[in-house]
Order: sequence, then C-alpha cells, then structure tokens
Amino acid sequence: MYGAGDVRVEDVPDAHLIEPTDALVRVTRAAICGSDLWPYKSMEASETGRRMGHEFIGIVDDVGSEVQTIKRGDLVVSPFLWSDGTCVFCREGWQSECLHGGRYGSDDVDGGQGEAVRVPQADGTLVVLPVREDDALMPSLLTLSDVMGTGHHAAVAARVAPGTSVAVVGDGAVGLCGVIAAKRLGAEQIILLGHNPERIALGQEFGATDIVRERGDEAVERVRELTGGLGAHSVLECVGLEQAVVTALEIARPGGAIGWVGVPEHDTTPTGIAFWKNAAMAGGPAPARAYIDELLPDVLEGRIEPGRVFDRTGTLDEVPDGYRLMNDRDVLKFQIAF
Amino acid sequence: MYGAGDVRVEDVPDAHLIEPTDALVRVTRAAICGSDLWPYKSMEASETGRRMGHEFIGIVDDVGSEVQTIKRGDLVVSPFLWSDGTCVFCREGWQSECLHGGRYGSDDVDGGQGEAVRVPQADGTLVVLPVREDDALMPSLLTLSDVMGTGHHAAVAARVAPGTSVAVVGDGAVGLCGVIAAKRLGAEQIILLGHNPERIALGQEFGATDIVRERGDEAVERVRELTGGLGAHSVLECVGLEQAVVTALEIARPGGAIGWVGVPEHDTTPTGIAFWKNAAMAGGPAPARAYIDELLPDVLEGRIEPGRVFDRTGTLDEVPDGYRLMNDRDVLKFQIAF
Repeated sequence: MYGAGDVRVEDVPDAHLIEPTDALVRVTRAAICGSDLWPYKSMEASETGRRMGHEFIGIVDDVGSEVQTIKRGDLVVSPFLWSDGTCVFCREGWQSECLHGGRYGSDDVDGGQGEAVRVPQADGTLVVLPVREDDALMPSLLTLSDVMGTGHHAAVAARVAPGTSVAVVGDGAVGLCGVIAAKRLGAEQIILLGHNPERIALGQEFGATDIVRERGDEAVERVRELTGGLGAHSVLECVGLEQAVVTALEIARPGGAIGWVGVPEHDTTPTGIAFWKNAAMAGGPAPARAYIDELLPDVLEGRIEPGRVFDRTGTLDEVPDGYRLMNDRDVLKFQIAF
Repeated sequence: MYGAGDVRVEDVPDAHLIEPTDALVRVTRAAICGSDLWPYKSMEASETGRRMGHEFIGIVDDVGSEVQTIKRGDLVVSPFLWSDGTCVFCREGWQSECLHGGRYGSDDVDGGQGEAVRVPQADGTLVVLPVREDDALMPSLLTLSDVMGTGHHAAVAARVAPGTSVAVVGDGAVGLCGVIAAKRLGAEQIILLGHNPERIALGQEFGATDIVRERGDEAVERVRELTGGLGAHSVLECVGLEQAVVTALEIARPGGAIGWVGVPEHDTTPTGIAFWKNAAMAGGPAPARAYIDELLPDVLEGRIEPGRVFDRTGTLDEVPDGYRLMNDRDVLKFQIAF
C-alpha cells in the first residue's frame, strides 16, 4: 500500500529464512482484514509503501535450524501476530502481548497478502492443520487467523456465558463472528446491531435472535426494550468508531461487560457511562494463537462455519479490487486463493 | 452544604417514617467521605442547601409496618446507598445498581451527617451489628458503610488474586482500604503510590510492600521496575482524577485489570492505553451492601482494621472543621461521634 486507496501488486525480493527460529511459508490462502481498510482510507502517500496482510494459510517450504514442531510440507495457519509461545504472556494465553512477538508487514517480516512469508518464532506461532490445502473447510480455517478469533475475543472479554443476553455492535465480519462466538458460548439472546440486509441475514443464520437497525439513541432504546429495560449482559463492540463505542457502553446492563475489539479510531472514551453502572470494559488485540487451539475442533467438525463471511474470492492480482469492494461495502470480506 | 466551603450544622424537621418499608435510625457514628469533598471544592452557592453524609451507624428507633428483619433497638450499619435487596440486580450482588434504590441526602431522604435518618428499604439496606454501640470496633465497622467496601470493590474489579502484583493509586482512605483488601485477597506484592508520609506509613502497616512516591511518568517507570518491567496484574485506581486514571492504565500489565472506584472528575479517558495491552477496566460505585456480609466477620474477629483510617473524631458541631481539615489534607478521614 502506497497511500490511501493506492494498493499495488508488485514483485519484491523472495522471502527467505533469516533467524534459526523462522519458517518460510508459501501462502495458499489469505484475506483482507477490516483493519486493513483504516490505512486504505487514510494512509499518507509513501514512496516506499508498506507490505500488507496478516491473515494467511500456507505450506511450509523451509524451516530454520532451531524450529522443532513445524516441518517442511506442513499446511499451517498463522495468527495475525507472531509470538514465541514461551514468554510469560504467551504461557498465560496472551500471545498477542508476547514479549518477543510482532506484526506482519513490518520491517523485514513479509505481509500475508503475498506469495510467501518469513514467519518468525515459527514454533510459537504456526498451527499445523490436519487437512489438505484444497479442503472445503479452507475459508473457515482461514478465519482462525484473525476474524473468528477476534469475534471470540470480544465474546470472552464481554463474559458471554450460558443464558446471557448479548448485543453485538457492528455487522462486519468481526461482528458476525462475534455472533457465532456468542452462540457457541451459550448466549440465550443475541441482538445484532447493523443495517446491511445481507449481513443481517447471515447474522441470523449464525444465531442472532434479534436485529436492531436503528442508530444512536434509537438503537439504545430498542436494545433496552429487547432486554426488559435492563440492557445486555454482554456487549461486543466490533467497529472501533467512537459512536459505536458509546452505543456499546449505553446498551450494557449495569454490572455487565463490554468486549471491545474494533481497533479504536478515536482518542478518548466517555468516562462516566461505564463507571456509574459498573460496566466492565475489556478487550484489545485478540490472542488468536490461543484461540486456534480452542476453535479449531469446532471448525474441523463443522459446528461453526465462520468461513461464510467470505463473499468474494479472487487472485493476488485482484487484491486492489478487493480493497475497493470492501471499502465500498460491496463485499463483506475478500479472500485470496493462490 | 450551601456551596463550596460552606458547611453548616442546622436544625431541620425531625426525620420520620414515610413508607412502610422505612426504618428510622438514630445516628451514633458517621463519617465524612472523600467524595463529599468534591462538592466542598466546587458546589455552586445554593439557598436551600443540600443534606450531606452517607456513611453511618445507628440505633433503630422505629420501623414501618412492612419491615421484617430489622427491629427497634437494633444497632445497624448502612451502606452508602439504599437498596431493596430483592430486585434482579440486588440478587446478583449489584445492590449499588438496585432498581428501587437511591442515595442519602437527596429529596426526602436525610443525610447521614445528622442525628437521624429515614432509611428506605430497611430490610434490603441495613445490616444488624452483633455488638454494642460503644464497642471498640466501631470505627472499623463504620468503614463498612463505604470506604472499606469501596477499596474492596477496587480490588475485586481489578481481579486481585493470590500471588498477584497489585498497584494502588492514591494514599487516601479508599486507597489504604484497597491495600487492606489486596492483602486480604492474597496479593504477593502491593505497591502503594502516594506522597503523604503518615498515610504511606499506615499503608505499610496495612500490607504495602513497596512505595512509589514519584508522580506521572516517573511513577510509571518506577512501578515497571518493581514488577520486572511488566506492570502490575491489578491496579486499584482510588483517586478519580484524569492523571491518576492515566497512571493506573500505564502501570497495568498486559492482560491485567484496573479497578476504578475514584468518582471520576474527568469526562473522557484515553482509549488506546488499555486497548493495545488488553487491560480490562472495571469498577464504579461499590455494592457495599454485598461486601458487608463478606467483610464483617473479618472486622469482628480483628483480622482487618480499616477503622485506622480515621485519624480525627469530632462532634456534629465540628463537621465543618472536619471538611476543612480533610480538604486541606490535614486529616485523612474524619468520624463523627454522637
């Protein structure tokens, strides 16, 4: 990406091993993330550009001398951050806070929207998939990189539990995966706040029991009506804009919790709303690596189908179109098949 | 209180029963709260004034016809909010969010800094104390009204657990009770951030293992040093000013939690600090009623001595002095003996 709206597919030097803990992964499937749209909307023009992409599956082409659990030929999925798996945070299940981890597409680590990626800390980062690269489950497996783990993180942070009422703010791919996660964790009522008819329909298939199409104060009023005047036990904030965060705070029940995973595009959050009703706020970048272990069996056995959030598949050359289509909201989520 | 700095002791019509669920309590012991200092600093001048006080112990002089568990002659402590004990929130332990509860010193409910109080929802609100009104434990029992329950709430909201590192922001009475609560819940390391030598000394007696006297960025740096560079698992924000909240956010460990109970005097909180490190924020007005049940045995058996936060006792006539002394930080917490 060279600036807002300027995505180019270019030849770059081949990815190669640098550290003995690296793996070289030939990408077979990748995706565009909602968070990739923030720079697509606002990035200042740059002469050097920036590598993009952090959701991918691929075949291991080579491994460094210290890699022990990943081997050549493995089909692997990568969480959107790499992590060593051994530091104090990784051991606590907070791989997104790894002391020796980092992001794809920065410095000398390739982006996932490309043919090959050097994956640092391969043992800690990658998870081997027990299927072939042409398996029909591939789209759902790809969501374990980020979007499904992020929706799950919102649900966990918002303390979704059996019998609870849940409100999901945002009908984007993360919000829809939040619906899947809320249902999977036993929510009794799942209220989806959104406006797009197709996304709402998919949300209902995923388990949303109520739809709120209103915005702002009217949406708050409607959620209160749907929850007996009390608000939702758990609110999943899956947008990241100030108005969405305020709505999420307003519709939480006293003593409830908001799980926020939408990358915040605003500098400050109103203080009093959560405080005066003892609503907790938790969330941030999902420890997707931890959640792959938890969610993978459900994907493999078909109990959840998050891959349905992909409504367009294209080639690497079509990635610039994918950004445009997602940014125009003509496509929910774009996957790249190599 | 008739305005900032203007506290007067006046004769008012006698408190009396109104609802059949009321109790009439003759106050024997009361206190000035740190939160009473906000209006003392900033309240606009008012001709009618405002009744003050919400921390008190007293003898039940009369009860309404529907009161069942409280009877005339009982010595009772009241949490700082009244609550019915039966609504959905009360049953969940969120009495501070009671659907039919409220505050003292508003409308026709008297303030606790006075000779008598009409206590609404007496069965849900009051707790009978199994001691005499001249018991030496009275100061510690009085803290169950608010300050000890509030410090405990900060610790619970910040998820203090055995073996954790805890940082307490603020050496006021709430912060010191937060130290007690953190120790009681098994914290291994308790870092108290404060500047007042006497309060710090008391905090150390209560269980603080480390003291940070620095402010702002230097305080953040010092807490990081004391926690192996990681930050504290649990941070108790016991001030309510923006700078204190920012410090609390900065010193939390990734994946950690901030319990905030200082009444927020600022409108917005920075969004990114907590988000990017997955630090949870929880807290608000403490469900002190619920915590009385949990903390009372420890007070009665002398395992905790929160009453030591009272460093001045005076009569009702001396309450205006009490405000001034607390506001000038010459007194930590003022109690009124009747």
